[in-house]
Amino acid sequence: MSLALAGIDDFHVHLRQGTLMRAVTPLLAKSGCRLAYVMVCLLTVPVQPNVADMRLPAQPNLKPPIRTTDEALAYKAQLQQLAPGVEFLMTLYLNPELTPDEIRKAAKAGVKGVKSYPRGVTTNSDSGIESYTVYYDVFRAMEEVGMVLNLHGEIPSDPSNDVCVLNAEERFLKHLAQLHADFPNLKIVLEHATTKAAVDMVKSLGDTVGCTITVHHLQLIVDDWAGQCHHFCKPVAKFPHDRDALRGVISEGHPRFFLGTDSAPHPRHTKESVAAAAAGVFVTPYVLPYLATILDSFGAIDKLEGFATRFGRAFYGIAEPAAAAAGVRAVKLVKAASGAGLRVPEEIPFVDDDGIQRSVVPFWAGKELPWTIELE
Amino acid sequence: MSLALAGIDDFHVHLRQGTLMRAVTPLLAKSGCRLAYVMVCLLTVPVQPNVADMRLPAQPNLKPPIRTTDEALAYKAQLQQLAPGVEFLMTLYLNPELTPDEIRKAAKAGVKGVKSYPRGVTTNSDSGIESYTVYYDVFRAMEEVGMVLNLHGEIPSDPSNDVCVLNAEERFLKHLAQLHADFPNLKIVLEHATTKAAVDMVKSLGDTVGCTITVHHLQLIVDDWAGQCHHFCKPVAKFPHDRDALRGVISEGHPRFFLGTDSAPHPRHTKESVAAAAAGVFVTPYVLPYLATILDSFGAIDKLEGFATRFGRAFYGIAEPAAAAAGVRAVKLVKAASGAGLRVPEEIPFVDDDGIQRSVVPFWAGKELPWTIELE
Repeated sequence: MSLALAGIDDFHVHLRQGTLMRAVTPLLAKSGCRLAYVMVCLLTVPVQPNVADMRLPAQPNLKPPIRTTDEALAYKAQLQQLAPGVEFLMTLYLNPELTPDEIRKAAKAGVKGVKSYPRGVTTNSDSGIESYTVYYDVFRAMEEVGMVLNLHGEIPSDPSNDVCVLNAEERFLKHLAQLHADFPNLKIVLEHATTKAAVDMVKSLGDTVGCTITVHHLQLIVDDWAGQCHHFCKPVAKFPHDRDALRGVISEGHPRFFLGTDSAPHPRHTKESVAAAAAGVFVTPYVLPYLATILDSFGAIDKLEGFATRFGRAFYGIAEPAAAAAGVRAVKLVKAASGAGLRVPEEIPFVDDDGIQRSVVPFWAGKELPWTIELE
Repeated sequence: MSLALAGIDDFHVHLRQGTLMRAVTPLLAKSGCRLAYVMVCLLTVPVQPNVADMRLPAQPNLKPPIRTTDEALAYKAQLQQLAPGVEFLMTLYLNPELTPDEIRKAAKAGVKGVKSYPRGVTTNSDSGIESYTVYYDVFRAMEEVGMVLNLHGEIPSDPSNDVCVLNAEERFLKHLAQLHADFPNLKIVLEHATTKAAVDMVKSLGDTVGCTITVHHLQLIVDDWAGQCHHFCKPVAKFPHDRDALRGVISEGHPRFFLGTDSAPHPRHTKESVAAAAAGVFVTPYVLPYLATILDSFGAIDKLEGFATRFGRAFYGIAEPAAAAAGVRAVKLVKAASGAGLRVPEEIPFVDDDGIQRSVVPFWAGKELPWTIELE
């Protein structure tokens, strides 16, 4: 059994800076990735629900985060050099300094989106997130120039209101609905959906609302990250019925749900630690074998191409490369006999910015995957 | 501010074997513990929800587990030598070889209870646990001789039925209700309750049903073990409203809810690992300062004595030691000024059975606790 693809488009990926960026970015091409939608920051500060201020801080993992067009272009140039064959789409970080003028400038320069994280810094917001209304001028400009709003859809944990990592996404969804109502022509993507509630909400909204789903959330449930630091990510994987909903929307081939891996490399020692583990799962090198193995397990291998190569591009309005449009299928997925599959390495070594030998543990480290990838 | 106590009674503690037992057991006396109800086994095999058989195996952590009176007495003798001042109450492991005769023998020898773990080995049980009816002869004998049934109240994870670590306890509760209905005179303790559902169920049942609550479940919610291996235990800590329910039943001074710490020492390297972390939180050395700090935080410091020294003993029908009955209060808890509290060590070193230097990371390692303990 085999499957030929033009490549994959990853609409949510973290590529870092420095030596880690240089180690990770070249893996994109080897994984069959032809398009990488680059997120500029990441929640790296763990929730501390027992401290006085329960709100979840958002901490960029690029220091400084990409806030301007010029910074985005400089970062893109670095990435492009590391993976010349990959199309990099850049994003800005939603922040109070962002202006409509900067949005127009960014759009002209090809920056595709703006990423919003829950901040929880506005103490008079009873919704648990900062009010989006302060950004409405920016959103209006984005709507005009066709930029996409990428939402990390969680409100900050707040035990006094029974908000924790398990219901943070569901409680965010009303904000998504409100934004869509206020900006029906603004393209909005709910990133890395993890719940049935999120799937249902996105389906209920108009065609300008899309949704990314990661590889790992199609596989993991809460039991898998209970005590397993390399499966810990934000949003956390939820109940079996939530995973069923994510799988279900892929099985039905819904065109507004597409691949965004949220792949996030963390040095192993920041995961296996007495301190809170860094949140994130690293899938970049083996996205396609993982995805084929998982989709095959629930009978949806025929939905892989739409989910990983067509729907996201269509939502964003990005044309197929000429070769792909002409029918070239440069990536081949092959289902091997047992014992002849792809063995995921235990770790991927790199030397960090201080010259120390480190490694990143990939998803399903040490596992043999039945599906392997061949590039032309 | 200070508080004088006769000592604490811990109705659920794991003390292990070998060098770890020898390192941990003497800490009981130093912590003000006068009674330790010793659990003979522990869930140590992590859930593997993606393998074919989803049922949770129960794995004793004493090899072999204590299944007979003679084994229990031999284990007790070892413990007694390590902590002569502590009253050790022993348990047997519920298993198919246990007979009514052995129960009568155990009761005569002073063994207090029988511990049941979810096994999930009976494939035609649609309830997710092995059927308890095979043990009804044993339970009848226990009822007759006044032995206590200690329940690990979780059904095994089963994604096909939406069962995972988050709802495993709630879904177990109908079995508790059924057992109580069938054996109204059998004393049953639901161990380490973590949910509002469990609190409500135990309250709704008769006076022969008690419930232990751990120190750490009074403090942690799901956010706290998300990526934090030293907060990972089974059952996992749940939602804020569940923690509120545990705190609430203590605040009301309900006499059928009492301390059972489920304190379980694990070598640090088995927690901070690429593999699944061992489940368990270690609180033994500082039970009282932890408990005072936590109860004080929600205004229930006046409920500490009942919860930690009177209710469990009353439920089990164990007389106060003569000195305590005469009013001796050998343990003093003192609330210190900021900066003068008790600093929990980062780790507690020990040498393992292979002669390797190891350590156990205690709960709240490195934190300063306002409440300190003084022993006479």
